[in-house]
Amino acid sequence: MSTKKAVVLLSGGLDSSTVCALAAAEGREIYALTLNYNQRHARELDAARAVARSFNVREHLIFPIDLTLFGGSSLTDDAIVVETDVPLEEIGASIPTSYVPARNTIFLSLALAFAETRGANEIWLGINCVDYSGYPDCRPEYLAAFSQLAQLATKVGVEGTAIEIKAPLLRLDKSEIIRRGVELGLDYSLTRTCYDLDDAGLSCGRCEACVLRQAGFADAGLVDPAPYRDRRPDAV
Amino acid sequence: MSTKKAVVLLSGGLDSSTVCALAAAEGREIYALTLNYNQRHARELDAARAVARSFNVREHLIFPIDLTLFGGSSLTDDAIVVETDVPLEEIGASIPTSYVPARNTIFLSLALAFAETRGANEIWLGINCVDYSGYPDCRPEYLAAFSQLAQLATKVGVEGTAIEIKAPLLRLDKSEIIRRGVELGLDYSLTRTCYDLDDAGLSCGRCEACVLRQAGFADAGLVDPAPYRDRRPDAV
Repeated sequence: MSTKKAVVLLSGGLDSSTVCALAAAEGREIYALTLNYNQRHARELDAARAVARSFNVREHLIFPIDLTLFGGSSLTDDAIVVETDVPLEEIGASIPTSYVPARNTIFLSLALAFAETRGANEIWLGINCVDYSGYPDCRPEYLAAFSQLAQLATKVGVEGTAIEIKAPLLRLDKSEIIRRGVELGLDYSLTRTCYDLDDAGLSCGRCEACVLRQAGFADAGLVDPAPYRDRRPDAV
Repeated sequence: MSTKKAVVLLSGGLDSSTVCALAAAEGREIYALTLNYNQRHARELDAARAVARSFNVREHLIFPIDLTLFGGSSLTDDAIVVETDVPLEEIGASIPTSYVPARNTIFLSLALAFAETRGANEIWLGINCVDYSGYPDCRPEYLAAFSQLAQLATKVGVEGTAIEIKAPLLRLDKSEIIRRGVELGLDYSLTRTCYDLDDAGLSCGRCEACVLRQAGFADAGLVDPAPYRDRRPDAV
């Protein structure tokens, strides 16, 4: 049997890097796709490159897409400030300002184009419905709708081959994700999750993404090997 | 009642320009979105600008997205040649080389982001299942799947407002589309449909898009006012 080809949506963050590790462990030939949609996170690209290299991916495409042209999110619009110090228990209660309109739909549709041109019939992504931070496009019913769309949208779909959307982290919490990645040999010091990375690649330690990440490492009984400017007092 | 806002996917071609005319006739405040995905069609952007201006759209966003990075289509990949002189009766029998992988999915997801940030809850597009040229993502069942996805994918969707996907040309043939546009005062000399436009903005007259367009004008008993380098002998 020939090696299965898989597109992996790889941001360089904790979740997507773990997904890359899982796809590699399943023996997939990996086509990593990183969307460069945000100047403020340019150091994330370095993380994505380092992770892709560490898993010997077949191809790593960094695709520029300027979502700042739409505005409307703290991640892409300088007029909206990143929320910090949100108490852990309040994260996920409402849709945060870091929500990028239609982001996962845009990313999955680009992954679909990449998959189709490379003859891959799997798209792996780090979507998660436990620590989902209130984003509407991180829910299982959303994923099911995209799977349905992918089948109808593509030449290979019409010709009878299904393009599978694989979301292996869907029902894992952050600490389970981290334990799984560590088992597979993923070096989390390569990964970055922060909404407010600095030019040296240091995470802020206080945005929602940093808070969830640090809590995950603490729950797993581990210390996050990534470098921070600051850490929450309640993080290990 | 306040004016309804609508995103219109406007390529500058015959179909999308007619959709713009229809949305204007329905009194919508129009946010036109043109995807700049193809160097070879740069003159299409001029057509889109001219059409947007003629309907006094509220905003016209030209969004760059380099689909050549994926390759795999005669419209975006120089290694694949545009088919010409395909007999009219054979068009639509198979998926042509001009098929851009996942194109409509990418375009609709960008339109969704634009709609959400502008407070529009309609996306109008010139999708068509009669003269659909064999593209899988131009079928009614595809459209229904995207509507479902849009509802689940967005903040406004989650909060209870539906984003409607309007495809008023879905079941019209080319001559009906043209008659409708002429009734609404659309100047088709502004529009371009050709897969192989030249630098002067002249259509080739022989690619599939030109063949369908010319046949549509002939069926409507009209002469296409757009300029061509060449016309099929069987076109009026």
